[in-house]
Amino acid sequence: MKILLVYAHMEERSFNAAMRAVALERLQANGHEVQLSDLHVMNFDPVPRAGDFAAPSDPSYIRYDIEQRHAVATGGLSADIRDELDKLLWCDCLILQFPLFWFSLPAILKGWIDRVFVNGVVYGGGKWYDRGGLGGRRAMLAFSTGCFPSMCGADGINGDMDIILWPIQNGVLRFAGMQVLPPFIAWSVAYRDAAGRHQALEDYGRHLDGLETATPLAFHHRDDFGADWRLKPGIAPKAVGQAGANRDR
Amino acid sequence: MKILLVYAHMEERSFNAAMRAVALERLQANGHEVQLSDLHVMNFDPVPRAGDFAAPSDPSYIRYDIEQRHAVATGGLSADIRDELDKLLWCDCLILQFPLFWFSLPAILKGWIDRVFVNGVVYGGGKWYDRGGLGGRRAMLAFSTGCFPSMCGADGINGDMDIILWPIQNGVLRFAGMQVLPPFIAWSVAYRDAAGRHQALEDYGRHLDGLETATPLAFHHRDDFGADWRLKPGIAPKAVGQAGANRDR
Repeated sequence: MKILLVYAHMEERSFNAAMRAVALERLQANGHEVQLSDLHVMNFDPVPRAGDFAAPSDPSYIRYDIEQRHAVATGGLSADIRDELDKLLWCDCLILQFPLFWFSLPAILKGWIDRVFVNGVVYGGGKWYDRGGLGGRRAMLAFSTGCFPSMCGADGINGDMDIILWPIQNGVLRFAGMQVLPPFIAWSVAYRDAAGRHQALEDYGRHLDGLETATPLAFHHRDDFGADWRLKPGIAPKAVGQAGANRDR
Repeated sequence: MKILLVYAHMEERSFNAAMRAVALERLQANGHEVQLSDLHVMNFDPVPRAGDFAAPSDPSYIRYDIEQRHAVATGGLSADIRDELDKLLWCDCLILQFPLFWFSLPAILKGWIDRVFVNGVVYGGGKWYDRGGLGGRRAMLAFSTGCFPSMCGADGINGDMDIILWPIQNGVLRFAGMQVLPPFIAWSVAYRDAAGRHQALEDYGRHLDGLETATPLAFHHRDDFGADWRLKPGIAPKAVGQAGANRDR
């Protein structure tokens, strides 16, 4: 497969840097072709700006998604966005690797999505979920966290990890049309000794071996929802986002 | 009350800018003292960097949370972080106002949290949830979205809005010790006519009138969880994050 690894950690001596090294080595050993977007090294700007468009359709009133669509049509996307979008469209599988900050993506990675998941290409005009612009691709999260697994169980103090990841796994990756693979989570890294951290890296390598064969997470199909955007009667909820489906019927 | 309004939109002619104007006027009319952090105007940098610390304890290996703690103790936080942290500690109520991007915060606002919610002050060393460093304060999200309400109902195509907001409302605001008020959501703004948008601004004003009196969202107390960080037997789940609590017991 062609794999795009988007990596977001500032420190070259970090555990995340070791994970990055494992991924690059393992993916190439497994015969994949890999491109790396190392966001801190690239000094990637995560903030959408008017300057992202060479010739906006209305410079006096920037509606970012409308200008994205216009820029796609006119070749006016800034070079840094265009480069990343080209990599995204090139890949068969997207891996986002990061430390979990405040139960979500670090800003530099969130901004990569805000700027590179461009309206008119990735989504918009009927392109969403099953019909998203990145259809046919796989995607996977790989992250470290200070949490212990029991904190993020279904009754854990931080809430269910499936719920914590829902806005990313459903709202970004699935929304854009991708098949979302089970994430790799390096738990409580700061509290583990060298052997434990070594074990986590071994586990990551094995997890990566399953990229082509792993069963994607279950999400509903677009057609499971009616004209009111709600699950059709008789469709049993199978994803955590709709798990409370019966609560207000 | 002393209110900190953190605002994240690039375009002065946007609906979000109109919401900001409503908030500033209404809050002051209601007798509150308001400070505004207008992140785009400030050109706020959302990316954590080694340069955030005047004299890091280990310049050769930046562990961001450990350096935050060290910088708090030694007065070494960068001026832009210190200024925002001072505002945060000054306020009785924090309002985050933004357009929902990819079912989460825009990167510039996520990075405000990543950099300003400083270890050793806001969290860490036993400071979390009920015992978080921002205890005694209220917090509220106010945001626009392209979604229609039915898309974000319990059985909606995008998933339950309570689940979508869980990482922010629980994982950031509640984690830091704050009482979280019901959010204000300006639904499907791009699809509404001028009268509909005017109505949404009126609704926002009324929502803001309830800042001091609104009942906060229900979250569990720290003591509802056992030594294994899971809900103690017999405690019924009352927040969406633990709603699947019985699924793996």
